[in-house]
Amino acid sequence: MASSEGNKLWGGRFVGNTDPIMEKFNASIAYDQRMWEADIKGSKAYVKALQKAGLVTQNEMEQILTGLDKVFDEWSKGEFKIKPGDEDIHTANERRLKEFIGDPAGKLHTGRSRNDQVATDTRLWLRDAINTLKELALPLIKCSLCSHHLTNVQLPNTHIPNYFPFHAVALSRDVERLEDIRKHVNVMPLGSGAIAGNPFNIDRELLRQELKFDSISINSMDATGQRDFVAEFLFWASMCLTHLSKMAEDLILYSTKEFSFITLTDAYSTGSSLMPQKKNADSLELIRSKAGRVFGRCAGFLMTLKGLPSTYNKDLQEDKEAMFDTYDTVHAVLQVATGVISTLKVNQPAMEGALSPDMLATDLAYHLVRKGMPFREAHSCAGKAVYIAESKNIHLSQITVEDLQTVSPLFDKDVSSVWDYNRSVEQYSAPGGTARSSVTSQIEHFRTWLQAQKQKP
Amino acid sequence: MASSEGNKLWGGRFVGNTDPIMEKFNASIAYDQRMWEADIKGSKAYVKALQKAGLVTQNEMEQILTGLDKVFDEWSKGEFKIKPGDEDIHTANERRLKEFIGDPAGKLHTGRSRNDQVATDTRLWLRDAINTLKELALPLIKCSLCSHHLTNVQLPNTHIPNYFPFHAVALSRDVERLEDIRKHVNVMPLGSGAIAGNPFNIDRELLRQELKFDSISINSMDATGQRDFVAEFLFWASMCLTHLSKMAEDLILYSTKEFSFITLTDAYSTGSSLMPQKKNADSLELIRSKAGRVFGRCAGFLMTLKGLPSTYNKDLQEDKEAMFDTYDTVHAVLQVATGVISTLKVNQPAMEGALSPDMLATDLAYHLVRKGMPFREAHSCAGKAVYIAESKNIHLSQITVEDLQTVSPLFDKDVSSVWDYNRSVEQYSAPGGTARSSVTSQIEHFRTWLQAQKQKP
Amino acid sequence: MASSEGNKLWGGRFVGNTDPIMEKFNASIAYDQRMWEADIKGSKAYVKALQKAGLVTQNEMEQILTGLDKVFDEWSKGEFKIKPGDEDIHTANERRLKEFIGDPAGKLHTGRSRNDQVATDTRLWLRDAINTLKELALPLIKCSLCSHHLTNVQLPNTHIPNYFPFHAVALSRDVERLEDIRKHVNVMPLGSGAIAGNPFNIDRELLRQELKFDSISINSMDATGQRDFVAEFLFWASMCLTHLSKMAEDLILYSTKEFSFITLTDAYSTGSSLMPQKKNADSLELIRSKAGRVFGRCAGFLMTLKGLPSTYNKDLQEDKEAMFDTYDTVHAVLQVATGVISTLKVNQPAMEGALSPDMLATDLAYHLVRKGMPFREAHSCAGKAVYIAESKNIHLSQITVEDLQTVSPLFDKDVSSVWDYNRSVEQYSAPGGTARSSVTSQIEHFRTWLQAQKQKP
Amino acid sequence: MASSEGNKLWGGRFVGNTDPIMEKFNASIAYDQRMWEADIKGSKAYVKALQKAGLVTQNEMEQILTGLDKVFDEWSKGEFKIKPGDEDIHTANERRLKEFIGDPAGKLHTGRSRNDQVATDTRLWLRDAINTLKELALPLIKCSLCSHHLTNVQLPNTHIPNYFPFHAVALSRDVERLEDIRKHVNVMPLGSGAIAGNPFNIDRELLRQELKFDSISINSMDATGQRDFVAEFLFWASMCLTHLSKMAEDLILYSTKEFSFITLTDAYSTGSSLMPQKKNADSLELIRSKAGRVFGRCAGFLMTLKGLPSTYNKDLQEDKEAMFDTYDTVHAVLQVATGVISTLKVNQPAMEGALSPDMLATDLAYHLVRKGMPFREAHSCAGKAVYIAESKNIHLSQITVEDLQTVSPLFDKDVSSVWDYNRSVEQYSAPGGTARSSVTSQIEHFRTWLQAQKQKP
Repeated sequence: MASSEGNKLWGGRFVGNTDPIMEKFNASIAYDQRMWEADIKGSKAYVKALQKAGLVTQNEMEQILTGLDKVFDEWSKGEFKIKPGDEDIHTANERRLKEFIGDPAGKLHTGRSRNDQVATDTRLWLRDAINTLKELALPLIKCSLCSHHLTNVQLPNTHIPNYFPFHAVALSRDVERLEDIRKHVNVMPLGSGAIAGNPFNIDRELLRQELKFDSISINSMDATGQRDFVAEFLFWASMCLTHLSKMAEDLILYSTKEFSFITLTDAYSTGSSLMPQKKNADSLELIRSKAGRVFGRCAGFLMTLKGLPSTYNKDLQEDKEAMFDTYDTVHAVLQVATGVISTLKVNQPAMEGALSPDMLATDLAYHLVRKGMPFREAHSCAGKAVYIAESKNIHLSQITVEDLQTVSPLFDKDVSSVWDYNRSVEQYSAPGGTARSSVTSQIEHFRTWLQAQKQKP
Repeated sequence: MASSEGNKLWGGRFVGNTDPIMEKFNASIAYDQRMWEADIKGSKAYVKALQKAGLVTQNEMEQILTGLDKVFDEWSKGEFKIKPGDEDIHTANERRLKEFIGDPAGKLHTGRSRNDQVATDTRLWLRDAINTLKELALPLIKCSLCSHHLTNVQLPNTHIPNYFPFHAVALSRDVERLEDIRKHVNVMPLGSGAIAGNPFNIDRELLRQELKFDSISINSMDATGQRDFVAEFLFWASMCLTHLSKMAEDLILYSTKEFSFITLTDAYSTGSSLMPQKKNADSLELIRSKAGRVFGRCAGFLMTLKGLPSTYNKDLQEDKEAMFDTYDTVHAVLQVATGVISTLKVNQPAMEGALSPDMLATDLAYHLVRKGMPFREAHSCAGKAVYIAESKNIHLSQITVEDLQTVSPLFDKDVSSVWDYNRSVEQYSAPGGTARSSVTSQIEHFRTWLQAQKQKP
Repeated sequence: MASSEGNKLWGGRFVGNTDPIMEKFNASIAYDQRMWEADIKGSKAYVKALQKAGLVTQNEMEQILTGLDKVFDEWSKGEFKIKPGDEDIHTANERRLKEFIGDPAGKLHTGRSRNDQVATDTRLWLRDAINTLKELALPLIKCSLCSHHLTNVQLPNTHIPNYFPFHAVALSRDVERLEDIRKHVNVMPLGSGAIAGNPFNIDRELLRQELKFDSISINSMDATGQRDFVAEFLFWASMCLTHLSKMAEDLILYSTKEFSFITLTDAYSTGSSLMPQKKNADSLELIRSKAGRVFGRCAGFLMTLKGLPSTYNKDLQEDKEAMFDTYDTVHAVLQVATGVISTLKVNQPAMEGALSPDMLATDLAYHLVRKGMPFREAHSCAGKAVYIAESKNIHLSQITVEDLQTVSPLFDKDVSSVWDYNRSVEQYSAPGGTARSSVTSQIEHFRTWLQAQKQKP
Repeated sequence: MASSEGNKLWGGRFVGNTDPIMEKFNASIAYDQRMWEADIKGSKAYVKALQKAGLVTQNEMEQILTGLDKVFDEWSKGEFKIKPGDEDIHTANERRLKEFIGDPAGKLHTGRSRNDQVATDTRLWLRDAINTLKELALPLIKCSLCSHHLTNVQLPNTHIPNYFPFHAVALSRDVERLEDIRKHVNVMPLGSGAIAGNPFNIDRELLRQELKFDSISINSMDATGQRDFVAEFLFWASMCLTHLSKMAEDLILYSTKEFSFITLTDAYSTGSSLMPQKKNADSLELIRSKAGRVFGRCAGFLMTLKGLPSTYNKDLQEDKEAMFDTYDTVHAVLQVATGVISTLKVNQPAMEGALSPDMLATDLAYHLVRKGMPFREAHSCAGKAVYIAESKNIHLSQITVEDLQTVSPLFDKDVSSVWDYNRSVEQYSAPGGTARSSVTSQIEHFRTWLQAQKQKP
């Protein structure tokens, strides 16, 4: 394109040899500054390895370490000033280091590239983030265990479950998966350079120990060009918040006037600007909404990755905003969910009021099974009894023994034992069922599990 | 849950009757303040309708209008101070209005709800945003037209297209679709209340005229509970940036050393912190990356909408961050793309050098077709000629007439006319083809179209 | 790679020069045979244009047309036999044509490519599909209008809406958007060749008329390489089924024992293999589930498109299965939804029983507004009244006038007029509101709209 | 809805008490029949547990086992006939069993529900599927190792990587993640009933041993209502195919005429119906396209799960088609990718020809670093040298020592050692780098790893 034409189209806005919109489009400092601590930690380890490799002297190393501590101090006091040209956190920190200590700062980047540096920073940051999320998930699981007041009251019903240890199960899987991801995160890319590796035979094992990574990346091209661990984290968050969206959906339903099984405290409800009597379960609706947000980040990042040529492409820069937003969202949701669950009130009478004898139709079939009838036949007999009750507009429990005997001669007076909700719940005593013994043992299982989780590193 | 237990779990962090994490989780002011102007505009219209309905006096209306102007001034000067309790932009503006004018401010919300207010604000904001994006898309289309230097040089090849008006076609569809969406956006929900409508028989037609909406929403429950227009906008952006991801991919390919068809100016390239000679097409890689980001927003919002009960749910609050981020992304991408296209240099000799006679094999077949051979047979004969050339390790054009005649007796000396790249391009003269006449008429088409677009409101 | 090594790894399975897994991976006949009719229609038009251009004789044209009719007959009778080598529907039809008429068949593909052929077939198929879906959507809208029994009974409540024309509004937008998409679909790519256009100056206007397209594609590279219209259709379906997922969610809620607002007929419920009394709203749960399925197709296809180089890439072959599955899904959902809505029973007494005076708190505020109190103050007074009622454990309507006067002296005996649900609903008489007059006019609007839709081409 | 109205709308199509469209919409037999073997296996285990619990006699158990073997035989011979009413594989198998053995078949479902049955079948099926995919992934990794001819030729360049063990690294992570998922899949839900557990105190440990599950589900409500393992598998496939989309993108690029680094064999290329010389890398384009398809399934299923109430909802039925299609796709892609990689030819001269001295600019900087210059300064000096070369239009290696000394006095004759591509590659000898020693050790690592994988159960 002739530059004259270019000028005509573009020149009004764009003078000199940079386009300010391009500069902003390219810069990541606005968000990657969150990794300032990880970046400094990585540089401190790297300079030690440079010293061991003879690329900086002991004295230069000490100057750099002291300088990095000063940069650290500025960030931690909120006094670090970002300047024009600080394109990213790596540039900003090195620029500031140079202002503190002068020339030796120029040796810090020897054999290192922003490609292995940013991969290292991101992994260090995410490793900490994962620890924090785990710490927030455990109390939520714990308080879910306590909500077993909800249990053993409402009869099993595939769509209105009697509650407990229930959501805790899914959340405990989430915690375990998070630990798997932590392992995938905790692999060190530092020492991979831009793509080809490190030419100064840097001691990567020393770096690994300094930065407490579990292992060292196997291949430099893969190490600098992959973001699997970010994608995995985004998907983990999507699964976790999908679980919580389901929990929220249950609780929203239970808190409707028509159900009235639970009441949220005011702290987790909000009013209407128009309707004075309205108390909205906003906390739960917001929790429910976030599964979409987080999965959107996962979907977006996967689409960005699709079909990229190998090794580092600038497209990978999309990883960080997705990761930070996802972390912040899960961070808030876990806390609000813990607040909601810890403080909601169960309306026992409403739950008991929702019981009705037709829920015991399966028990009626089992009653016949226990007398020797094949289940399929028993199921059919119980179905006929349901039909009789509906025709007579009475409860299932109100059918006379005589009427039941028209359905099957196996029915006898002892059928009355069926109409007992507690007995019904108690019969499910196989592991995982609703019997008090089974539920207690599930709770015990999670108590032990929680204890074990806390003792992990 | 017994409050004593609740306190044990939760109390450390949570004292009094609000949970600060919940408050932050719930508040939207951090991002919805972007709609301050739309919010004030909506309120100014609404107070006029209240006056007409006799719910405020002429004097009260004037006080409110003056007060709103003061609020407007503060925002436009960057002096508006958000206070604790300013949960959203609506609350903030009304709070400030009350500080300015006292009690009459309390009449502004009569018969209005935040539900219809936020829907109105969002539509007003997005309507403007759409206009801006259209204004940014037109210059990109225009400069794409100018890049037809790229045309008529490289022979058609399904995978390395000769360039021209090419991407402009997709972008022109994007602009047209944006206009369709604008129509869907430009429907007024104000006067729908929280859900049931307006009980003071407000003049919605007056509101419509004041706010320049095309029409009035038909049903209050739908008007307050739907965000179709946001979802449509997010998808529009996904399609548009997918188009640009494809354009970016082409240009990245063309700018590799191996192709060398184009060179980006330095303004849209960046260097490597490690490799001094490296010039990365970062602008294009970033453009390519954004399709994923924006589609992630679309995917996330659709997932949030899925299965919601009808009418307003707090989940809908996810609409705004998705919309703002998408707008900002498209806004930047369109400008950077215009910059890249306007300033790139085409390396004509490299493109010419990439031509080779085997690209003319189809022409060889057409040569036979023109002599009366059915195409399928001609295609097969040309294939045999290709094979001969490969066997002899010569160019297709170097096969002797004698050798060609072993393939088909229809070959004669006049086959030499086939080996002319320009003639080849020129034969595609049907509308839409690569002949100069056809390309010129396509460019003319778009010039007229651009003119028409600019004259639209 | 040395072939010996290759053989070791691969040879066991892969003999000769084709890999049967690759052949299957590559072939599309398993699904694109659905377009047999569109493919024949396109070929019949194309041969007429070839004749006009002098590339086939009148006689050859007639042979080809007759032959194509025979192929058509075989398909329509279910007698067409797919043979090995029939990689796609285009190949299959041409192969069969040749079997019927011999050599002239070899002229049919002159100047045409599978690239423009498949784009044409897909557009013809989708154009018909859109018509069918519209025909199925209209009865659903119509029967939704009839479901207004649901209206005017339950007071407005942002989370439990009084029903009517409600979902019809969203569906009517879906129908209108479908018409927009139909326009984007109805553009003819035929005559674009593989990428560069048509070299025999084919009369594209003749083709357009034969195939009843609205217009002709502008650029051959765009015409053969874009699938915007498929992506748009997939997103349209995602929006439409998201609307229906919301409707399903409402109805599932209303059909719970606790709500009991509606009852589904047995035809749209299913039983449990274990619980004899259980009647599941499976139809609605399945409808709800399909929004995800269809959006997954949209997400997948967008991801496939992202970052593709321009013009035809084989990746585009993913368009058809996504399109067919989406069509089939929407096709079934619309019909099942119509069946559910047409046959459900509304339990009026249950809906009336769900009314309670606290729903009238906003009316209490409006009562004060009508006496001159600013709304914000009135809202606060009504809030205090709600609090009094809760403290005394009585209904809002049971508070004495004396007690109300402690809240505001504006309260008087006439407050009793507030406690009338019908009056409450009737006050929302502004357009779009719940007053009978407003609802009637909405229904009237849709009746007219439906009439107009049916008369469209 | 009055039935008369209902009839008008609906009756034409819908007579009797079932709607055939609803029946088809509801039925899963069309696809879940793929799990016939898992279903029979589960039933055989279950009847043993019933016998132990005294619910069937030894004789009945044997009848049932023999009957199930007959059903198995029919399926494996392709002779099983699906009948109307065979809504799903569970129903079909039990129906056929009854035809074989009569009444005792009615006892098989005692205490079992389709909810725990389908969860068990799905897990059994997926466990096998995972094993198969792993078996297909290992040869792909193995042949990727062999493709290291590609290595050590092309100098490192962040965008055109020298190839090898490269993609094998990502694929080996995929295999390891697949093993994690296998563990999550291999948990037994059987014995959870419809929701509440098993009331006959079935021996779940016996069931576990019979079916070779690793462990037993903890909670019956979770066990029947969760599909985490399906979602995880879908995401796993999305990651794996995203890796392969990147590999495909690389190879497509390398196979362009302009790069010519590799040639695909004809078996994995296809021709053009129009262009006789055209050889398309269709296999690679198809591989690239499938990442979107599979991720679409993942996105769709997550969206379906979002916000569902707890325990079994019919929405979960969407799991199977997503799972099957994803499996089939990965199954094909792994094999085709192995075929492509095993048979492609590397064009060594073309790769060597692509080397150019400017790629050694980093080496020039390192040369100065080794002489004691801080890296930042050395990077800048090398940049100046690049500029000199560009200005003089010569290669970097052609700058005279004198000219280099104007940049830095540290330059001397020994700079000539820099212009050696092999030496450049060899300097990256730290673990993970491009030195022959490092690459060899990476290959060795994977050989050992492959060996270990094969020996796993």
